[in-house]
Amino acid sequence: MVEPATLAQLGEAELIRRLGAYAAPGQFNDDAALLQERSDRVLVLTTDVLVEGVHFSDATVAATDLGWRAAAANLSDLAAMGCRSVVGLTVGLVAPGTTPWSWVEGVYGGLGEALDRHGGQLLGGDCSGGSQRLLAITALGHLGSGGPIRRADGRPGDQLVCTGCHGLSRLGLALLLQENPLPPLPEGLGARALQAHRRPVPRFDAVAALERSRPPHQPWRVAGTDSSDGLAAAVALLAQGASCTALLERDRLPVDPAMAEFPEAEEWCLGGGEDFELVLALAPNWCDAFLGALPGSRTIGKLSEGPAEVRWADTDSALELTCLGYRHFGSS
Amino acid sequence: MVEPATLAQLGEAELIRRLGAYAAPGQFNDDAALLQERSDRVLVLTTDVLVEGVHFSDATVAATDLGWRAAAANLSDLAAMGCRSVVGLTVGLVAPGTTPWSWVEGVYGGLGEALDRHGGQLLGGDCSGGSQRLLAITALGHLGSGGPIRRADGRPGDQLVCTGCHGLSRLGLALLLQENPLPPLPEGLGARALQAHRRPVPRFDAVAALERSRPPHQPWRVAGTDSSDGLAAAVALLAQGASCTALLERDRLPVDPAMAEFPEAEEWCLGGGEDFELVLALAPNWCDAFLGALPGSRTIGKLSEGPAEVRWADTDSALELTCLGYRHFGSS
Repeated sequence: MVEPATLAQLGEAELIRRLGAYAAPGQFNDDAALLQERSDRVLVLTTDVLVEGVHFSDATVAATDLGWRAAAANLSDLAAMGCRSVVGLTVGLVAPGTTPWSWVEGVYGGLGEALDRHGGQLLGGDCSGGSQRLLAITALGHLGSGGPIRRADGRPGDQLVCTGCHGLSRLGLALLLQENPLPPLPEGLGARALQAHRRPVPRFDAVAALERSRPPHQPWRVAGTDSSDGLAAAVALLAQGASCTALLERDRLPVDPAMAEFPEAEEWCLGGGEDFELVLALAPNWCDAFLGALPGSRTIGKLSEGPAEVRWADTDSALELTCLGYRHFGSS
Repeated sequence: MVEPATLAQLGEAELIRRLGAYAAPGQFNDDAALLQERSDRVLVLTTDVLVEGVHFSDATVAATDLGWRAAAANLSDLAAMGCRSVVGLTVGLVAPGTTPWSWVEGVYGGLGEALDRHGGQLLGGDCSGGSQRLLAITALGHLGSGGPIRRADGRPGDQLVCTGCHGLSRLGLALLLQENPLPPLPEGLGARALQAHRRPVPRFDAVAALERSRPPHQPWRVAGTDSSDGLAAAVALLAQGASCTALLERDRLPVDPAMAEFPEAEEWCLGGGEDFELVLALAPNWCDAFLGALPGSRTIGKLSEGPAEVRWADTDSALELTCLGYRHFGSS
């Protein structure tokens, strides 16, 4: 007998049985998952939807990388709230009946790799036919011992810090789409860009560094978000949250040095998106300690009294709105 | 200025701002939701996906009813695990940019009505464009004081019990689809069928009745699931879970008396689906007490030694497989 190749051939019951192999034994056997949550840690909950043709394409993302990215995008939201550990996630899978099982297997394999790396389990889910492939993921984590990271907790005088370079993921996408013209790439840059695009890493280590670097007796107050929708969009959220102006220093933009000569470097750094770094607003003394605790982090500007907007510190001009991130309701 | 009418005209940021009005103030302001879960109650987590053209259609379900049903389907899974109370839910919304805001407003209004009725809050979510309207909901609840209801906890000798009539929701769908021919409906039946289809009620009251009716000193052992995919499918899950035979009594099928003369009554009772009652396997002494504690509940058969299948008790013949529920991977 030939192995069934599509979801329609497998049927829903067999599909769920196979997906259950990615979870703890018995985890998929009931109407819902039980969390034996008998501790006093604060739970954090986040939901993300990834739609084919909007957030991913078979042309640029292999199934295992898609699974990893889908998990990583949710785990990055947990890190951006101040989580140190992952409880697990649920997956809503929608796909046409003609979808090959091998694609689903790849996606769950990639999800499992990300969970193995960062902790947490596949807790449950649901699946359905539909015209378009889609993953709807809800992730749960535990807040770290410090406290939450809120978008609204910034204050004038805070330093703006990011945990790493921006624009690499966008370069990776350009390579996969074979966008033209790209200048010749310095050695190693292409591989790093593809890795950044395919296997982003949620910055739980940055939360640990925040806890380590907190000055003695200083109350926990950290504003932040992740840069999934782009660095400029993240900074704009912090400006809006704190109701003040974010001043960005153009010569401190976190561009990868190997990309510095690219004509698109600044645009991709600010608006490329999907770098999944943390963007934080910290009191200056904490910021200094944090920069020492997390190599690769850097200040990019500060919060200042003024209207809730993002401006260039050197020219005192507002950032172009086109930098401020993706919109997913084009008209498709 | 004319009020923007479609999601594409609103844009994602404005859409999220409007959706945030259905949650507690500030709830949508961060990358994730915080659950101040400082108790020792067990959390229960479930995910359901509802896809246009598979699970719902604009032709038969108004937006507010869809929102209610989407919430109720998830809350029914929580009740089927033994929950007494709802923490809240997250919503992944996918829709084409041409979708009217009024539809989204209706959906969230219906979700909010269900949460108001059963407790719990809108905790967060995500939204995206896509070719097909779709809701991916993850609900959280607290287990009741008794214990969990597991599909695998039945034993030979248990009575099979259901908490109400089955087939009404399917009749409601037939009325909305104007399926022909339907016999003349007894007075009130049509309205009850439409109500059952549009506004199903998760049976948290049945979990409370289980706790009240538990015989003194008897350990908590309740097998069960909900009948979202049909009564026969629910009974089959309990037979599989307990690795034994479920014997159904044909003359005790929970058909609404007003539907008894319908030619489709038995088929819709067994396989109509979306009645969202609980189907339980209980030790006989507990079963007797439960029937007294929950008016409208009734025994429909029992679990018995034998292979994991569903059989008619009177003729000792296997149930037709066509009764055993929906499959959502047709080939669409």
